[in-house]
Amino acid sequence: MTRQDSEKRATLLDGFWQDMREKNACVSLMNVYRRFLKTGRFAALDCVKRDPPPHIFFDSDVAKWLESAAYLYPDFPNGEVKKIVDDTVDKIAAAQLPDGYFNSYYQVYKPDKIFAERTEHELYCAGHLIEAAVALSDARLNQKLLSVMRRYADCIYERFLVRRDTQFTTCGHPEIELALVRLYRCTCERKYLALAQFFLDERGRRAEDIYPVFDRTYDQSHLPVREQTEACGHAVRALYLYTAMAETGRLTQDDALLHAAQTLFQSITQTKMYITGGTGSHYFGECFTAPYDLPNEYAYSETCSAIALALFCVSLFKSHKKAEYHDVFERVVYNNLLAGQSVDGKGFFYTNPLEANTAHVRFARKTKGYPYQPIIERVEVFDCSCCPPNFTRFIGRIGEFIYDEDRDCVYINQYISSETERGNLKLTMHAGFPYDGDVHILAAGNGMLKLRVPVWCENFTCSVNGKAVAPVCKDGYFTVKAKGTTEIELNFEMRPRFLYANENVIANSGRKAVGYGPLVLCAEGRDNGINLRNIVLSAPEPTSIEREGMFTLTLPAERLHSSAALYSYQPPTREKITLKLIPYFMWANRGENDMQIWFL
Amino acid sequence: MTRQDSEKRATLLDGFWQDMREKNACVSLMNVYRRFLKTGRFAALDCVKRDPPPHIFFDSDVAKWLESAAYLYPDFPNGEVKKIVDDTVDKIAAAQLPDGYFNSYYQVYKPDKIFAERTEHELYCAGHLIEAAVALSDARLNQKLLSVMRRYADCIYERFLVRRDTQFTTCGHPEIELALVRLYRCTCERKYLALAQFFLDERGRRAEDIYPVFDRTYDQSHLPVREQTEACGHAVRALYLYTAMAETGRLTQDDALLHAAQTLFQSITQTKMYITGGTGSHYFGECFTAPYDLPNEYAYSETCSAIALALFCVSLFKSHKKAEYHDVFERVVYNNLLAGQSVDGKGFFYTNPLEANTAHVRFARKTKGYPYQPIIERVEVFDCSCCPPNFTRFIGRIGEFIYDEDRDCVYINQYISSETERGNLKLTMHAGFPYDGDVHILAAGNGMLKLRVPVWCENFTCSVNGKAVAPVCKDGYFTVKAKGTTEIELNFEMRPRFLYANENVIANSGRKAVGYGPLVLCAEGRDNGINLRNIVLSAPEPTSIEREGMFTLTLPAERLHSSAALYSYQPPTREKITLKLIPYFMWANRGENDMQIWFL
Repeated sequence: MTRQDSEKRATLLDGFWQDMREKNACVSLMNVYRRFLKTGRFAALDCVKRDPPPHIFFDSDVAKWLESAAYLYPDFPNGEVKKIVDDTVDKIAAAQLPDGYFNSYYQVYKPDKIFAERTEHELYCAGHLIEAAVALSDARLNQKLLSVMRRYADCIYERFLVRRDTQFTTCGHPEIELALVRLYRCTCERKYLALAQFFLDERGRRAEDIYPVFDRTYDQSHLPVREQTEACGHAVRALYLYTAMAETGRLTQDDALLHAAQTLFQSITQTKMYITGGTGSHYFGECFTAPYDLPNEYAYSETCSAIALALFCVSLFKSHKKAEYHDVFERVVYNNLLAGQSVDGKGFFYTNPLEANTAHVRFARKTKGYPYQPIIERVEVFDCSCCPPNFTRFIGRIGEFIYDEDRDCVYINQYISSETERGNLKLTMHAGFPYDGDVHILAAGNGMLKLRVPVWCENFTCSVNGKAVAPVCKDGYFTVKAKGTTEIELNFEMRPRFLYANENVIANSGRKAVGYGPLVLCAEGRDNGINLRNIVLSAPEPTSIEREGMFTLTLPAERLHSSAALYSYQPPTREKITLKLIPYFMWANRGENDMQIWFL
Repeated sequence: MTRQDSEKRATLLDGFWQDMREKNACVSLMNVYRRFLKTGRFAALDCVKRDPPPHIFFDSDVAKWLESAAYLYPDFPNGEVKKIVDDTVDKIAAAQLPDGYFNSYYQVYKPDKIFAERTEHELYCAGHLIEAAVALSDARLNQKLLSVMRRYADCIYERFLVRRDTQFTTCGHPEIELALVRLYRCTCERKYLALAQFFLDERGRRAEDIYPVFDRTYDQSHLPVREQTEACGHAVRALYLYTAMAETGRLTQDDALLHAAQTLFQSITQTKMYITGGTGSHYFGECFTAPYDLPNEYAYSETCSAIALALFCVSLFKSHKKAEYHDVFERVVYNNLLAGQSVDGKGFFYTNPLEANTAHVRFARKTKGYPYQPIIERVEVFDCSCCPPNFTRFIGRIGEFIYDEDRDCVYINQYISSETERGNLKLTMHAGFPYDGDVHILAAGNGMLKLRVPVWCENFTCSVNGKAVAPVCKDGYFTVKAKGTTEIELNFEMRPRFLYANENVIANSGRKAVGYGPLVLCAEGRDNGINLRNIVLSAPEPTSIEREGMFTLTLPAERLHSSAALYSYQPPTREKITLKLIPYFMWANRGENDMQIWFL
């Protein structure tokens, strides 16, 4: 493996995603920076004692910010960002301990507890710093952090794997495993892969410290990872771990590990995933719960877990070239993930419920001690602000997830306007996704292209060099042979379609959702009034589709009206209405209001 | 007012309710006694220091047990019960302090904190002991407790109203107010009514101690009671308080107080009551929540709050002779309240959810620290075992709620086999309720009878002395003039009818429940398999009705079946099924299983 192969990102061309990257580069990145600056996250890196001390995972927030800068800077260069990156790296380098260790919390406030407290995110922070280092180096934005972090990784290797003198063997929050694989892919240094393997193999093998209020499923240490078959515990932890399993399994040809990762993927996508691609259905532990237990209003569906699921899909695809991984990627990215940020690029959701009820939220807000009610408007910063920089880094990195290759074959997995060179092919793609199914691909060179037919698409047309073809699908892909200059015109039919949940998902019994291409649509109170749960869909025949400004689609529907009594023998009457739907990811951009995805 | 008028109870004749009383007299009473004995509740009354100390509200548990004995003993005399009652009263009398004070916790463990800790149920315990004393005296089972408790009530009067040297003025758990009204009605001593008035008037007037995790709505001390318009806070506390307001308002001709009580009743019955008559829709604080927020699976609907709502209805009826109060009484008693006890008379529910999902319960059970999931099988004792003796005392007392009178007029509010003398009339009633709408009433003497037409009844027939009449209803009652010997034959048509919730109750949007006479029916997993939420009712035309053994009714229905995928574009198919329904109050008597009231 050469370094170039490790993380190949396509160059984005103008369109939906490049607009998104521009917003994240020009608005979100500095906005998150200012919030982090204000809350002492950057200051903490000088490792000078302060009161109050920084949070134990501030390093990881800054690391994700650095990583975001790495992905966004090349397309949107900005002197201020470059200076912050370099200054920040300098601070980290200056504070790094002689043995390579760096953690702005432990080395300052608890030096005697270094590598002693399993549950406190120490290796999680290391992991994110390593990822940032890899990304900054790849982007040629800063090379120094990579050498700093290699020293830290060497220190971790020495302590955990050679001397084995640490007081835990696996971190309570998986992430280091994933980061070490990236470091290996970047440096070709096998010890980092071996260390990732070690952390994976040790997990669930001994009775290490756990979180006092949870059981061992919470951090997936209840069983050796190869024996895990049901996704459980904290969803972000789970998905970082599973992604590391898939990555390590692939790179070490460890079929058992790969098989376990695939089994866990099936557990999620067949029983524990929201229609938005969201995962984690209870605020308690931000956890996966029982199969098919997917309540809408209390969905946790953390933005970070959406990102983690997307990464897991991409990793599994590398081993098993099946469309289902990129179908799930598309579902989670265009819905749960994108919902994590406001249209203005400034606000973020930590949790992403599938239903919002302002009456419940307002009651909870005024009731002292009320246990949990999701917030229904994005905010600019959280105490636990893991999601905002995770969002910006994912958006920055999107070009990595469009194409893949396998011997003589290039896969087009996501229809995103971009250009890339893969094998002998130079590809230029223009795509109208997610609002329009037209795709234009120009291939220069000779090779085989495999194009994914999205799971939501019933009809599509394809012409190659102006000639209509009727391609045969296999495993969700069809093949086009490129020779010389090949022009491919595609149309994946996008129209509203009703979606039904499995009968075991009782939260949605008797209900249907509306899909449009890769999008799940929702109705907001602002457009449709209160009591959205009483709306009965008639037919998926749109009365209008508006693509300018906010994408809006209207459908014929009915609204049930009751008598005034609390209970009555009188069946509800039906009022004909026009239901206004918008993409789920755009909800909550016009003030606090009700929202719903599943209709009668 | 004479003492006899205060709490007139009809004698029950054989039938549904006397069977219930017999079971509670012969099984439940001694079973609860044994549980209470084992957990030290009776022992604590000798006021000898023990380790661990008794719970702060053990006195109230014993008091409700004594009160139950008072109501049940006359029909089901039992030497053992009589001896326990007398021994218990002797213990209390022996331990009573010279100033009349009695509390088995405070006088032993915290004598310096007597009347100092508002939130610790001290006057709540006093109230239940006073109620027990009144009942034992009325039943002529034991007169001693009444004089003991009068001394205690005098002590409370002296400390709270005369000397005003206590560290709080109103108890965190209302109950004493209600009890003082009963003591007044029993003794005709006005100071007790004045003390009840004082406690009501003081509530919400000053910043007294509250519970650390809650706000002032929790114990209804957020506003002076006359200014309260929305039912809020802990449902049992609320309903005991509102009942005391209705009672005191009536007895003191305080229209403002009565009006406030009525407004709160409307708030409950128009926006905050389950179809079962349940109240309290969140485990947090066992509280009323926002209007129309009535989740089924997480309904709190405590058995004690059902009892309290029934008492509130009866009290309001005394001031306002409207059928709605007894319609609500009937709803809550035949559904939420009766569900509180198992068919064998031994097990009890504290909470009464309207939907049970074994998958959720089992997940919660195996997950350490999981916040809340209702229990779905009755148990014989709880740590907080307020409901079992409250249930037995209500069942014992049922004869008090059948008839009422107003000048020359006798109201028949509940159709329960019984006999009574009211005014110039001797009445004997046989009724098939709740399974059969036939009622036979024999009236001896001259007078006016007002018979309630239940809200669930669309058609009824009436004959007087063999001659069909077509009575005119007013305020939910029709009038029959009795002269000499009058025989009234009634049939209130009972058949399954679909019920719909108000459109604001979004938990039930698009759903319907099945009522049968006063009963709400439910389906259990044992009869109908899992995923009850996918069942679509067809028509309320029963295919069978079984009245022997467990009342069972079958209806034609359909079940939705999905494809195997978690999400699919394929609409569910419909399987024709026969849905087996039983009375809600009989659910969970055949092992842990799913249950549902609201169907598609």
